Amino acid sequence: MKLTILGCYSATPRALTNTTSQVLEINNHMFLIDCGEGTQVQLRKHKIKFNRIKHIFISHLHGDHFFGLAGLISTFRLLTREADLHIYGPKGIKEVITLQMKLADSWTNYKLIFHELVSDKSELIYEDEEVEVYTIPLTHRVYTNGFLFKEKEGERKLDVQAAEESHIDVAYYRKLKQGFDVENEEGTIIKNESVTFSPPKPKSYAFCSDTAYNESIVPIIKGVDVLYHESTFLEKHESLAEPTKHSTAKQAANIAKMANVGALILGHYSTRYDDLNDFKLEAQTVFENVHLAEDGKFFEFD
Amino acid sequence: MKLTILGCYSATPRALTNTTSQVLEINNHMFLIDCGEGTQVQLRKHKIKFNRIKHIFISHLHGDHFFGLAGLISTFRLLTREADLHIYGPKGIKEVITLQMKLADSWTNYKLIFHELVSDKSELIYEDEEVEVYTIPLTHRVYTNGFLFKEKEGERKLDVQAAEESHIDVAYYRKLKQGFDVENEEGTIIKNESVTFSPPKPKSYAFCSDTAYNESIVPIIKGVDVLYHESTFLEKHESLAEPTKHSTAKQAANIAKMANVGALILGHYSTRYDDLNDFKLEAQTVFENVHLAEDGKFFEFD
Repeated sequence: MKLTILGCYSATPRALTNTTSQVLEINNHMFLIDCGEGTQVQLRKHKIKFNRIKHIFISHLHGDHFFGLAGLISTFRLLTREADLHIYGPKGIKEVITLQMKLADSWTNYKLIFHELVSDKSELIYEDEEVEVYTIPLTHRVYTNGFLFKEKEGERKLDVQAAEESHIDVAYYRKLKQGFDVENEEGTIIKNESVTFSPPKPKSYAFCSDTAYNESIVPIIKGVDVLYHESTFLEKHESLAEPTKHSTAKQAANIAKMANVGALILGHYSTRYDDLNDFKLEAQTVFENVHLAEDGKFFEFD
Repeated sequence: MKLTILGCYSATPRALTNTTSQVLEINNHMFLIDCGEGTQVQLRKHKIKFNRIKHIFISHLHGDHFFGLAGLISTFRLLTREADLHIYGPKGIKEVITLQMKLADSWTNYKLIFHELVSDKSELIYEDEEVEVYTIPLTHRVYTNGFLFKEKEGERKLDVQAAEESHIDVAYYRKLKQGFDVENEEGTIIKNESVTFSPPKPKSYAFCSDTAYNESIVPIIKGVDVLYHESTFLEKHESLAEPTKHSTAKQAANIAKMANVGALILGHYSTRYDDLNDFKLEAQTVFENVHLAEDGKFFEFD
């Protein structure tokens, strides 16, 4: 599971800071999460192949999370993309993107499939053999979802030496990987666990931006390996967090602790702060394993 | 008259090249012309004060000319702008910008005034005491206008010494600057030209992007000091220029020559070319005074 932060600042893009966008690579899938203005340039800078992006998840329709989407779709068209592109986001996203294509008389030659979200409950919005994606209803000034990406449990690993010693015909290896007990050549039942290893623990990643402090997301993100939780402010500006429906670093750490996550990544910083390390120090008063998102930073989680 | 090129490449923004946007400073006005994705970052990089921009002119609704507009409007809001903002552009621009504000539930606290253009004839779209702006109907795949910015002729300059020697009362100096003849203290009529100098010749700038080769714009831009004319292609790719409704460097130079302009600036280059100097060399086979637009380049015209 790999995560590239393309942008992690709030409000507006600046010369050296970008608004929210991330690329999550999980089980050979490449998911683009949010798409602030300039995301396509960030993708180029970090040499992420446009063609590998088949699914884009937009948390909400504030500009710093989606004003780069129309341009990215347009660039895909100019590069003669052929693969389908799936876009998940709040209701309205289809209208605003298609209006821009209509006014430019520039329709995509590839298939653009919108999955508009309206539910205020967590729901499964994407599933294939390896990965599931659920929404995480967040609390913001407009309808907003976080996204939970979960690997499915893989097949069991065969202990070839043990299987041979147990005289199991190779024709049964497939069933062993699927977790079944099998008969050996002498007709004895061989317990699956005695000739296989457990598959690697499935990885999970929760993206939560933007949101006010809200404990009701804890059950949804319980035990995830990595939680990205916004921390627009430090505690000293908590009075700004409440009306703007944002969180402080300490509040993000509280959520991480309650959900018992493996690691917390902070981001969506207000540009009023000079030293990002203050966010880390504040969060670590509550939860130890804290990382700071920074534009261009690459995380690899084993 | 000063011109800052914020971006001058066609199609898509890249790590080192930006799509179309320019700032024209003329007679203390600061006009933003086109607004590709990332324009707000370019404005910051070139330290152009956001508050000085009160009028934005959008040639057409292709993304590389206006996908930065919604973000710029949003950033003005976040910076608590109070001054009115006038936006001139094709019909539809109001709908697409207001839809984005509606979906984000982020209305501007300043007044946003749209001037939607529909005419296929050149028309006066802005006028004050110092400057006029006219549309230049262009020939592109969608409805497109260039813009002609013209200083009005200023007041005559007073030759104070000559006025004193002619015994003209200072109360008449105002009328002298306005071009009138006046009576002196002895009741003699003093010819205006004998005590004033001509005002500086008014400057003019024509912006023509994007357009196929079209001689019908020549009468509109006749004699301008500076013409920016797109040159997406070189002559060797003329076969691409026609179907995409773009021009070659040589075609741009032909227009410059026919319109007898003072200087030609080329831009809107396709990113297929490595050496921009080829555009200049090609244009100079037809018209001598050719300049190349480059991102960040600053022109000052006396």
